[in-house]
Amino acid sequence: MFKASVKAEVLKQIVDVVSTLVDEAKFNIDAEGISLKAVDPAHVAMVELSLTKDAFNEYEGEECELGIDLEKLREILKLAHSGDVVKLEHNEDKNQMIIRIGNVTRRMSLVDTAGMSDPKVPNIELPTTMKISADELNFGIKASESVSDHIALVADEDYFEMSSEGDSDSVDFRLPKEKLQLLESKGKVRSLFPLDYFSNMAKAISGNNEIKINLGNNYPVKLEFEIAGGSGRVKYLLAPRVES
Amino acid sequence: MFKASVKAEVLKQIVDVVSTLVDEAKFNIDAEGISLKAVDPAHVAMVELSLTKDAFNEYEGEECELGIDLEKLREILKLAHSGDVVKLEHNEDKNQMIIRIGNVTRRMSLVDTAGMSDPKVPNIELPTTMKISADELNFGIKASESVSDHIALVADEDYFEMSSEGDSDSVDFRLPKEKLQLLESKGKVRSLFPLDYFSNMAKAISGNNEIKINLGNNYPVKLEFEIAGGSGRVKYLLAPRVES
Amino acid sequence: MFKASVKAEVLKQIVDVVSTLVDEAKFNIDAEGISLKAVDPAHVAMVELSLTKDAFNEYEGEECELGIDLEKLREILKLAHSGDVVKLEHNEDKNQMIIRIGNVTRRMSLVDTAGMSDPKVPNIELPTTMKISADELNFGIKASESVSDHIALVADEDYFEMSSEGDSDSVDFRLPKEKLQLLESKGKVRSLFPLDYFSNMAKAISGNNEIKINLGNNYPVKLEFEIAGGSGRVKYLLAPRVES
Repeated sequence: MFKASVKAEVLKQIVDVVSTLVDEAKFNIDAEGISLKAVDPAHVAMVELSLTKDAFNEYEGEECELGIDLEKLREILKLAHSGDVVKLEHNEDKNQMIIRIGNVTRRMSLVDTAGMSDPKVPNIELPTTMKISADELNFGIKASESVSDHIALVADEDYFEMSSEGDSDSVDFRLPKEKLQLLESKGKVRSLFPLDYFSNMAKAISGNNEIKINLGNNYPVKLEFEIAGGSGRVKYLLAPRVES
Repeated sequence: MFKASVKAEVLKQIVDVVSTLVDEAKFNIDAEGISLKAVDPAHVAMVELSLTKDAFNEYEGEECELGIDLEKLREILKLAHSGDVVKLEHNEDKNQMIIRIGNVTRRMSLVDTAGMSDPKVPNIELPTTMKISADELNFGIKASESVSDHIALVADEDYFEMSSEGDSDSVDFRLPKEKLQLLESKGKVRSLFPLDYFSNMAKAISGNNEIKINLGNNYPVKLEFEIAGGSGRVKYLLAPRVES
Repeated sequence: MFKASVKAEVLKQIVDVVSTLVDEAKFNIDAEGISLKAVDPAHVAMVELSLTKDAFNEYEGEECELGIDLEKLREILKLAHSGDVVKLEHNEDKNQMIIRIGNVTRRMSLVDTAGMSDPKVPNIELPTTMKISADELNFGIKASESVSDHIALVADEDYFEMSSEGDSDSVDFRLPKEKLQLLESKGKVRSLFPLDYFSNMAKAISGNNEIKINLGNNYPVKLEFEIAGGSGRVKYLLAPRVES
């Protein structure tokens, strides 16, 4: 059983964050809220999302799984104006989600979740932690975009750097410690990542959000940030490209 | 003979309304104003437009027919800024329209009207009448767009509904009588229409216009609205798709 | 040797003006500033640009040639926000330009200038001189765009006209002398030009710039205007299409 009402903006944020990696996702419902784990088809990146019932205007849930076509949900959310509340109700008999926005009633068939297992999120210890605004992160990515398909994230005790190296050109975007909201690094770390994945993840994060980044040496990067005004939390994990 | 000056906005409205169904149209001129009847190439929809000379700043006309390439006229009207007045003059010798906008003089050859007969607009009695804003109508259409290629218009004594049914999904946009500017229906009526035609017609109507809709049971729908601040009137007729 | 800092807007203006004709260009540096001459691949048009060191916040230069990929520079300049200052430094050993915008350091390899000779700009005496705003010029071009691939520039003692003649349609944009900032013509002159070249040149000139035009009879047209608030000057020359 699932019945809830929630601001359209919260649902849009969820769709943005998850659709970066997958087209369809399995949302796990229980009495306390919603959670989701998904891995992209190439097994390069993962997303883990949790949303407590505090994120909702109204919330009633019993343990169940809902398979959602994210593109379809995105289309439906375009019917909502700023500030609109969306009512959601699971029709178990027809395996449909009933979505109400103003005078519109939309019935969306759910996706079969039988083949969707929850990926195991590895528990990785990463030596460097920093906090950066989504705007700064996206600016560093934009600087790299015409230079290479990869981006190196580098941190030392006193700076964080995003850099790319092409055949003839290169670019560095270096922020000294005082320009970051936090930087804890016991020495230099450096990992290389596919720029398209990293860029899509960063773009999915709303502008003035603060992002916590954990980084290691030739290790995955972990991005963590809040959604729904703090009632939700997202973790992205992205595998490094190990340089030969 | 035809010589007139008119606000560019009025001409743009005419082009929007008529180009929804045809690329070229025959405008019938006389001393009192302009009228036009056109049917789309697939004979699914019709438009009937009339504009009195009150819609013009200056107007002189004697009975004649002007064949206009609507796309070309739309391009020319892009040269007009908001509030600009457009001067029109028919050069009979060269069968050209001379169009003046500010310091620009544009000579546009007219289209041969020999093959363009005025379609006969059927006189249909439709049992249900309602009035709705163009914005509400377009919102209902937007809700249907990702669900099906058809849209059903349904009315009863106390509501008007636009709905679509897809293979797995469905959508209803239902307005109770008190949300409509008018609703007169002696019982339930329902007709199904091709969404693309209906959508193009509705989009051609400027935002805050009030639309009168006449509806029946598996019958054409009639949309009527004013243009040029009331000096012009448009009727659209759209054939239903009869459901088997 | 070349080391300078300059407002991003000035560099963007240079890229806009020169990239209209060529993808790569050779910038000649000396102690007093920068100059450039380029001809388009079809040898139909030329650009001559000069920028004194007053256009720069800081400027140090010794005689040298810098081959710049203009598209690449345009991309890099997108990293600059309004008002940002860009630092430029030539790394002679690596033949790179080091470009600093805020916390970004971009190294851009320079293009080989060996095959790029300075074209000789012909010294042409043209009988008619006028001054017109870039906005008026661009409006006249827009009026011509759907009529023909060519545009005629015509001037007499008391007017300047841009006109195009198509198979069935024609357009004139005629400005009387009092609507121009200057008009000196001892008689009627008329030359025909390829619309795409003329349009691209005019579009490269920022909106409220005053353009000096020199025109003759079946002769090239010369467009001259200032950039960088008067510290730079651009000349375009465009060959006529001689009418048979």
